[in-house]
Amino acid sequence: MTTVFDHAWMTGLFGDKGVAEHLSAEVQLAHMLRIEAAHSRSLGNESAARAIEAARIGPEDLTEGTATDGVPVPQLVRCLKAQISPELHGDIHRGLTSQDVMDTALVLSLKDILPIFRQGLIALQADLAQLTQAHGGGALMGRTRMQAALPITVADRLVTWRMPLERHLARLDEVRARVLCVQCGGPVGLGAGGAALAAQLGLAAPDKSWHAMRDGFAELANWLSLVSGSLGKMGKDISLMTQQGVDEMRLRAGGSSSAMPHKQNPILAELLVTLARYNSVQLGGMHQALIHEQERSGAAWALEWMILPAMLHSTARGLRAAQELLAQVETIGS
Amino acid sequence: MTTVFDHAWMTGLFGDKGVAEHLSAEVQLAHMLRIEAAHSRSLGNESAARAIEAARIGPEDLTEGTATDGVPVPQLVRCLKAQISPELHGDIHRGLTSQDVMDTALVLSLKDILPIFRQGLIALQADLAQLTQAHGGGALMGRTRMQAALPITVADRLVTWRMPLERHLARLDEVRARVLCVQCGGPVGLGAGGAALAAQLGLAAPDKSWHAMRDGFAELANWLSLVSGSLGKMGKDISLMTQQGVDEMRLRAGGSSSAMPHKQNPILAELLVTLARYNSVQLGGMHQALIHEQERSGAAWALEWMILPAMLHSTARGLRAAQELLAQVETIGS
Amino acid sequence: MTTVFDHAWMTGLFGDKGVAEHLSAEVQLAHMLRIEAAHSRSLGNESAARAIEAARIGPEDLTEGTATDGVPVPQLVRCLKAQISPELHGDIHRGLTSQDVMDTALVLSLKDILPIFRQGLIALQADLAQLTQAHGGGALMGRTRMQAALPITVADRLVTWRMPLERHLARLDEVRARVLCVQCGGPVGLGAGGAALAAQLGLAAPDKSWHAMRDGFAELANWLSLVSGSLGKMGKDISLMTQQGVDEMRLRAGGSSSAMPHKQNPILAELLVTLARYNSVQLGGMHQALIHEQERSGAAWALEWMILPAMLHSTARGLRAAQELLAQVETIGS
Amino acid sequence: MTTVFDHAWMTGLFGDKGVAEHLSAEVQLAHMLRIEAAHSRSLGNESAARAIEAARIGPEDLTEGTATDGVPVPQLVRCLKAQISPELHGDIHRGLTSQDVMDTALVLSLKDILPIFRQGLIALQADLAQLTQAHGGGALMGRTRMQAALPITVADRLVTWRMPLERHLARLDEVRARVLCVQCGGPVGLGAGGAALAAQLGLAAPDKSWHAMRDGFAELANWLSLVSGSLGKMGKDISLMTQQGVDEMRLRAGGSSSAMPHKQNPILAELLVTLARYNSVQLGGMHQALIHEQERSGAAWALEWMILPAMLHSTARGLRAAQELLAQVETIGS
Repeated sequence: MTTVFDHAWMTGLFGDKGVAEHLSAEVQLAHMLRIEAAHSRSLGNESAARAIEAARIGPEDLTEGTATDGVPVPQLVRCLKAQISPELHGDIHRGLTSQDVMDTALVLSLKDILPIFRQGLIALQADLAQLTQAHGGGALMGRTRMQAALPITVADRLVTWRMPLERHLARLDEVRARVLCVQCGGPVGLGAGGAALAAQLGLAAPDKSWHAMRDGFAELANWLSLVSGSLGKMGKDISLMTQQGVDEMRLRAGGSSSAMPHKQNPILAELLVTLARYNSVQLGGMHQALIHEQERSGAAWALEWMILPAMLHSTARGLRAAQELLAQVETIGS
Repeated sequence: MTTVFDHAWMTGLFGDKGVAEHLSAEVQLAHMLRIEAAHSRSLGNESAARAIEAARIGPEDLTEGTATDGVPVPQLVRCLKAQISPELHGDIHRGLTSQDVMDTALVLSLKDILPIFRQGLIALQADLAQLTQAHGGGALMGRTRMQAALPITVADRLVTWRMPLERHLARLDEVRARVLCVQCGGPVGLGAGGAALAAQLGLAAPDKSWHAMRDGFAELANWLSLVSGSLGKMGKDISLMTQQGVDEMRLRAGGSSSAMPHKQNPILAELLVTLARYNSVQLGGMHQALIHEQERSGAAWALEWMILPAMLHSTARGLRAAQELLAQVETIGS
Repeated sequence: MTTVFDHAWMTGLFGDKGVAEHLSAEVQLAHMLRIEAAHSRSLGNESAARAIEAARIGPEDLTEGTATDGVPVPQLVRCLKAQISPELHGDIHRGLTSQDVMDTALVLSLKDILPIFRQGLIALQADLAQLTQAHGGGALMGRTRMQAALPITVADRLVTWRMPLERHLARLDEVRARVLCVQCGGPVGLGAGGAALAAQLGLAAPDKSWHAMRDGFAELANWLSLVSGSLGKMGKDISLMTQQGVDEMRLRAGGSSSAMPHKQNPILAELLVTLARYNSVQLGGMHQALIHEQERSGAAWALEWMILPAMLHSTARGLRAAQELLAQVETIGS
Repeated sequence: MTTVFDHAWMTGLFGDKGVAEHLSAEVQLAHMLRIEAAHSRSLGNESAARAIEAARIGPEDLTEGTATDGVPVPQLVRCLKAQISPELHGDIHRGLTSQDVMDTALVLSLKDILPIFRQGLIALQADLAQLTQAHGGGALMGRTRMQAALPITVADRLVTWRMPLERHLARLDEVRARVLCVQCGGPVGLGAGGAALAAQLGLAAPDKSWHAMRDGFAELANWLSLVSGSLGKMGKDISLMTQQGVDEMRLRAGGSSSAMPHKQNPILAELLVTLARYNSVQLGGMHQALIHEQERSGAAWALEWMILPAMLHSTARGLRAAQELLAQVETIGS
């Protein structure tokens, strides 16, 4: 329970069930099997495809193999072959490499996750529009360098929370087109059979496998951190607005304190700041992973495994937490 | 399963059972209960302490409360009071705050984890001494800027892997003294009752609670990343030494490839590089958390929760992986 | 001489004269004056505009004022007013704030710098195309996890260096449209007079000033790090290819060693790796700066000043160094 | 003028003259010449040493050579030999390598810089002690999660600013002993003649050259970021305390605004936050540089050159800015 996202109780604060499901070992395994089956089908071997679909393999079957091989796929293939008649083996995983299966499985998860982000951004825009409609005319003190400057309206501040979301939606379209691509290069990336596989999986087929070109994932990581950064700005503002003495916002419900029952803590506002700082830190690691040696770097690739899922989870949680937080707003401005 | 450390199959490669146990929710909960009991005992209420020790609370009892309160402790206290006779309630958690319980619980985990690191460093030193004894006289080409420079011996390279470990042991003593301290400040950090609590828990009692002074944890994070950085250098060297054409080292066993059965991959050498880069990235987040507002910053504190456990896990895994890797060395030098 | 970019001798290795010029204090000051003049012209006061254009102010005139005010603009305005007849003062800087002038001045520098990046990317693509034409059919050993895997051609590896550049060009168009925007919000960002100013300066006029919405700059930083990351992959590959024993590439000229006259060091290949890791690290800081309090955060804004120029310089140097490096290639493959 | 530290006007805010001097090219060059002379003296050739001391070489003489060689030392040696009689050449730079000279030159700068940090920490402690004596009994509202919690005294908050400084002084002693070491390994690090050189330079002579063991510098970077992090916490608190509505502190002088003459901006408080976040970000790069290939990695080493000077400068500026800021305190608490 090393991570707050899956931790018995921390998940209450940090977890997002939707993304957690799409990133679960069960779903990843299902994606890998779906890819292997689709690949056999691309090779024209429907029997092998069906046999793969009928195989029964559990996540824990891959643990020991991953320890030895550094990736789960060799063991996955061994498990498949153990359950499938030998005459079909020739069309199982033929011409694929582990990276094809793992990268494409992650892309299939992304295909399901990116729409969640899109919906979250749209819902948040709607919440902000509604808040603006309800309270936008209220007065706030404009503050620069944390000092009272000149009066503004609530709408003036809310628009700085909302406008980046529009840009993030536009960026998401751009990123998605570069990221939802099949990986199908074979041992050293020369394979060219990706089109048929991509068609079955509903992914794009790039001109070339991208084993060693990781700019798509690094760009996605940037997008995730841009989103959580914008939410962090909102969370920071709300933390400041709910200070006693400033009193520019009151929240309906906050967290309680074990020591001071009278206190209401703007937990979710702080959480947005935490998630933003977290993703900012992680982003650098995804960019370090761009320095990917030769045809495949185990070291750089594995760094992505350590970082990207947590960033996806953080952003998803942030989008939901932002909506929950705005729903707690009781008063804003005066 | 957002994290490789606990993931169904990735744990085979990234997981360290020892540290995972000490960081588990079960152990953390046990620590929190032990702290609450010890605190009631410090207050002179043995009955309350025993009642706390007899309480039955599970990790999942705290999930919902953490979602609301941002910390598990208010719910923990509610659970305790629900199971314990009301006349003892006055001496349960009296004068404590959530941060006292959570920080001290983490410190109790560290008290058990730091010796594992110490042992790992010592074992690795011994492995390197043995390797030097067995192969130290062998010839290597000294390489600077990845270019052949002048001949050196195997011992010359191994000493650059070993010497930092000595310094890390010295640093560990310094860090430990600053980190294994009780937290006992109460709502706004003014509490002074930590000595009795510390004595019961085998921790030091600092002059002042350190709610908002996080330099100890940031320094610990630095130590973790120094260790994994040194191991990363060793892993990088081994990756380079096992290249075909360079052939300065042969490993007994590596990972197999799903596409190329003839290949032996130096998985653990790459893993050491990955873990080093990972911890380097995380370290910045622990230092961001030094900017801790006023008497307690929820935003900065929660950032530590997201980062420190993963760094502990990475370093532990690195130390074990380094030993496993050295055990795979078949030949080194010529 | 704290930075390698401007350091007396380090600039020989790290400096890029083109970008250095566009980021120089002289050019930034000229931009600020141009903005102030254009703004007075937008206000319909041609005399004030001309007076500003005729003013003589040097970079060093702003040092002391920046120390006190945290920004150079108040002192710039004081200097202007000291040189300009009082009846024109009313139309100097009226309605502007320091951030308007400084952000727009940086955007004007970017307007000149981004085409340099574009040209660099295009030139590098051409170099790689030429290299592919000359040597593409040569044989290389495909290497995965730094181990010999299967034979590939030189073209197969070169394409992984080239293809990301195409995507970076596409991304540059997207980023540019979001970044080359005038800043014209006045004290707390409410100003709406940006269109006339933008038209004079050849910039876009966004719907709203973006004082506290820094996603454009963070996205630009990501782009810079994507580019240097892709170049870092090329540099890393070349470092590995020029190893004795691997011998997949020979360079015409490298750096000499003070101790080993026979050695040729692939300095520029290593430099590309260094620049990539540097920008990866910096990127996180630009994303921390997204958490920008209220209407203007001095703390977050100043973090951008510390980081973005160095990233621009790194990327520019990387693009030029990559071209120089490819020009040194004597043989590649076999 | 890529960096705020040396920038014509930004240096007013970010620059520290003391450290800038010790990091200047002139001083670094003087250190390199001093090392070369001391080394010739260690070789027993007093004439060569005196000839080196008499040589006239300027920083700009090394620029072109650095561009080619990646380091300034080969050109430095060429310049020396051009000015010195050939019969002495044999004892110039004999057995040294560029890294010996450059690392030791940096260590000599550190030898002068670390006492500045020590003095800064001590002065700051004194300032805080004085502030506590003058205002410590005043009332503040203790704030947790940015919410009013319970009353505390001014002394209660000030002690959280002061106590980490004590620990930083203790850490400085520990770090210094591991960092102020001569580098004297020769081409591939085998040299053992460091003791005589170290004695002349007033440095420690480690058992082994540390070309590829960079834990000392990474640890120093951590120390720098710990210090600026603690100052960042103080700056953040002051930013919050000087908010209108909170009004827990009033500063004598702040920065003026170009748009709002009535405003007083707590520039230095914000600066401390900026410097802390900056150093936190940089720290990760120094730890990436721990992954130092073989006997010398040009890529990892050059990353240190890009990062460490700026961290030294940031910390120095932070310490001075903190003292300036405390001197501006007019009232604190009530």
